[in-house]
Amino acid sequence: MSETQSNVEKVVIIGSGPAGWTAAIYAARANLNPLVFPGRATGKELVPGGQLMLTTEVENYPGFPEGITGPEMMHHFYHQAMRFGTRVVTDDGVKSMDEMSNDSLYQMFQNVKSVDLSKRPFHVVGDGGYEVDAQSVIISTGAKANWLGQENEMRLAQSGGGVSACAVCDGALPMFRDQPLGVVGGGDTAVEEASYLAKFASKVTLFVRRGEMRASKIMQQRLTENPKIEIMWHTSVTEVLGDEKITGVKLVNNETNAESELELAGLFMAIGHTPITGFLDGQLELDETGYIVLKDPYRSTTSVEGVFAGGDVADHVYRQAITAAGMGCKAAIDAERWLAEQGE
Amino acid sequence: MSETQSNVEKVVIIGSGPAGWTAAIYAARANLNPLVFPGRATGKELVPGGQLMLTTEVENYPGFPEGITGPEMMHHFYHQAMRFGTRVVTDDGVKSMDEMSNDSLYQMFQNVKSVDLSKRPFHVVGDGGYEVDAQSVIISTGAKANWLGQENEMRLAQSGGGVSACAVCDGALPMFRDQPLGVVGGGDTAVEEASYLAKFASKVTLFVRRGEMRASKIMQQRLTENPKIEIMWHTSVTEVLGDEKITGVKLVNNETNAESELELAGLFMAIGHTPITGFLDGQLELDETGYIVLKDPYRSTTSVEGVFAGGDVADHVYRQAITAAGMGCKAAIDAERWLAEQGE
Repeated sequence: MSETQSNVEKVVIIGSGPAGWTAAIYAARANLNPLVFPGRATGKELVPGGQLMLTTEVENYPGFPEGITGPEMMHHFYHQAMRFGTRVVTDDGVKSMDEMSNDSLYQMFQNVKSVDLSKRPFHVVGDGGYEVDAQSVIISTGAKANWLGQENEMRLAQSGGGVSACAVCDGALPMFRDQPLGVVGGGDTAVEEASYLAKFASKVTLFVRRGEMRASKIMQQRLTENPKIEIMWHTSVTEVLGDEKITGVKLVNNETNAESELELAGLFMAIGHTPITGFLDGQLELDETGYIVLKDPYRSTTSVEGVFAGGDVADHVYRQAITAAGMGCKAAIDAERWLAEQGE
Repeated sequence: MSETQSNVEKVVIIGSGPAGWTAAIYAARANLNPLVFPGRATGKELVPGGQLMLTTEVENYPGFPEGITGPEMMHHFYHQAMRFGTRVVTDDGVKSMDEMSNDSLYQMFQNVKSVDLSKRPFHVVGDGGYEVDAQSVIISTGAKANWLGQENEMRLAQSGGGVSACAVCDGALPMFRDQPLGVVGGGDTAVEEASYLAKFASKVTLFVRRGEMRASKIMQQRLTENPKIEIMWHTSVTEVLGDEKITGVKLVNNETNAESELELAGLFMAIGHTPITGFLDGQLELDETGYIVLKDPYRSTTSVEGVFAGGDVADHVYRQAITAAGMGCKAAIDAERWLAEQGE
C-alpha cells in the first residue's frame, strides 16, 4: 500500500533499539508526538529492537540487578515509548498505544527506504510505502556486528550458546570463567576484547587472518606480554562446532592450508561493525567507516541542522545499551530545544 | 576510626548516583574490583543515591514502562553493582555483597573528604577516616540543584508535592496538565523550562528576580511570543504554600516591596545547579561554573590522566538519569582500557 501524509511531523525517529525508543520516550513526554520507523522484522539490516534482539541475557543495563533478556528489555522500552504517545509506522498505517495488543504489529513495522534531507521539512520514505514530512529527524539505526556468516555461528549467537560479538557485554558471564576462549580479528577492538577476556578465561586464542595485525604496536605488545593470550597467525575459523553450546572451532592456516580443530567454550567476533547508514545516501557527513559524525561530540547534532543522531550509528567506541539510550535521550532533548528555537 | 589501606586499588569511584553505580557495574564486570565512596547519608552535598533520592516518580528512565520511584531505582543500581563484586567504604570498614542485608549500611557510607591527584597512585581520603591509594579514579559526585531554601519548598519537593528542579523530568506528570505553573529563574535554563512546561500547562509564570534576564535575547524573544507565558519582573518567591500539594506562592516585588500571592499547581526551580567539585581543591580543570571539563567531550577523560568523570558533575546540559548512567559506563570502559594500556 502507498499512503502520503499531508501533515508535517515534528519528529521522525528512525530505528527502535535503546537509542530510538529512548528518544521516543523523551520526545513523547515533551509533547512532540514522535513517529517511529522501527525497522523491518524480516529485514537484514535495521530490525525492530536492534542488536539486543540477538542477545540473551543482559546483565549490565543498570536497573535490573538479576539481569533481563535483550528482547524483554526492548519490549519494556517499546511499551514505555508507546505509553507516552509515540506512534509507529506499520504496513497497516500509523499505530498508537491503542493497538499495541495486536501481537502481529511487530511483523508489520516499516523500515525506512530513503530520506531527503536537502531541504526542510525533511522527507522520509518507508519501505512499505508510507511517506512523511518531518521538521526534525532522529537517526538511531544502529550498527550491525560483523559475523563470519556461518549457520551454526549465528544459531549459537542467538541462543546464548557461547558465541558473541561483544566481550564487554558477555565476557563476564559464568559460562566463560576459567575456560578457553577464542577471539576473531586483528584490529584494536580484537586486542581490547582479548585483553578483557583474559581476565576471566583460562586462555584466550586470537585468530588473525593474516601474518600481521591492524592494531597499534603498543596494543600488540600488551598482547604478547600477556601469558594467557596466544596469537594464531594466518588463521581463519571455518566452522563453529557445538549443539547447545560451542565446543570448539575448525581452523585453516591460510598459508599452508593445514586444517585443525581447537576446543573452546566461547568465541567472540571482533571483525568490526557496519553502521546502518546506507539509506542516507551521502546526505549526512559520515566518518571513513560509515558512522555518522556528530558535529558537537558531546551532543547529538549532525552535519545537517535539524537532523540528530544517537546510539551505535554514531558510536564506534562504547556500543552499550546504556550509552545508546543516553545518546537517544540527548537527541530528543536537542531536537526539542532546536524546535523551540525555530518557534515550533 | 582511622584506617589505612596498604594495597593500591585499581579503581576508586566517588559518588553513587546513576553514573557512580553504572561505573561500578561495568568496572566490577571487568574484574577491576571497584571501591566506591557512596557519599554521606547525613551530608549536605554528596548523598548516597544522588539527586534521584529527592525524586518520587521517575517515568523517563527507559526500561520501566510503569515508572519507578527514584529511591527504588537507585536501590536496584546499588544491588546490581554489589552483585558483581563492588565494595563500598563505610565507617565500619570496606563492605561487600555479603553484608548488604545490613540495613544500617547506608547510614554508615563514607563520603570523600579530599583527594591527591598530583601523582600516581592517587590518594583518596574518606570523611570517616578511611584512606586509600588508587591507580585510577572515577568522579561521579553529581550536581546539586539550587533551591530557594525554604522548609515547605524542600518538603514538597521530596514528597512529590509539585515542587521540582527539573521540568524535563517532571513536567509531563499528570498533576501538571492544564494547570498554572511557576518557574523561578532568569537564565537560559529558566527559559527552556518555561517553554517546555508551556506545552502542558494552562499558563506558566516566570519569576525573575531582577528587571532583566541573563538568558540570550533570542531565547527571551521566544518567551514573549508565547501567549501561555507571563514574566513577572523584580519578583522573588518568599514562601511556598500548600500542605500535601503546592497551592501557590507568596511573592514580593523587589522594587516596590509590594507583596502578593499567586495560585499555582507546580513550581519549578531553574536557578542553577552546583556541581560537587569542592573536594577536588583545584586539582582538575573545571569550567567557570565548577563543572569538570572533559578533555575529549565524547569520552570521560579529564585534565589528569587516569582520572575519569561521569554524570552531572561533568554535564550542565542534559542532567538525566539515563545520560548520567551512560557517562558512568563510558568512565568505567575508559578506565579499564587505560589501565590495560598501563599494563595493569
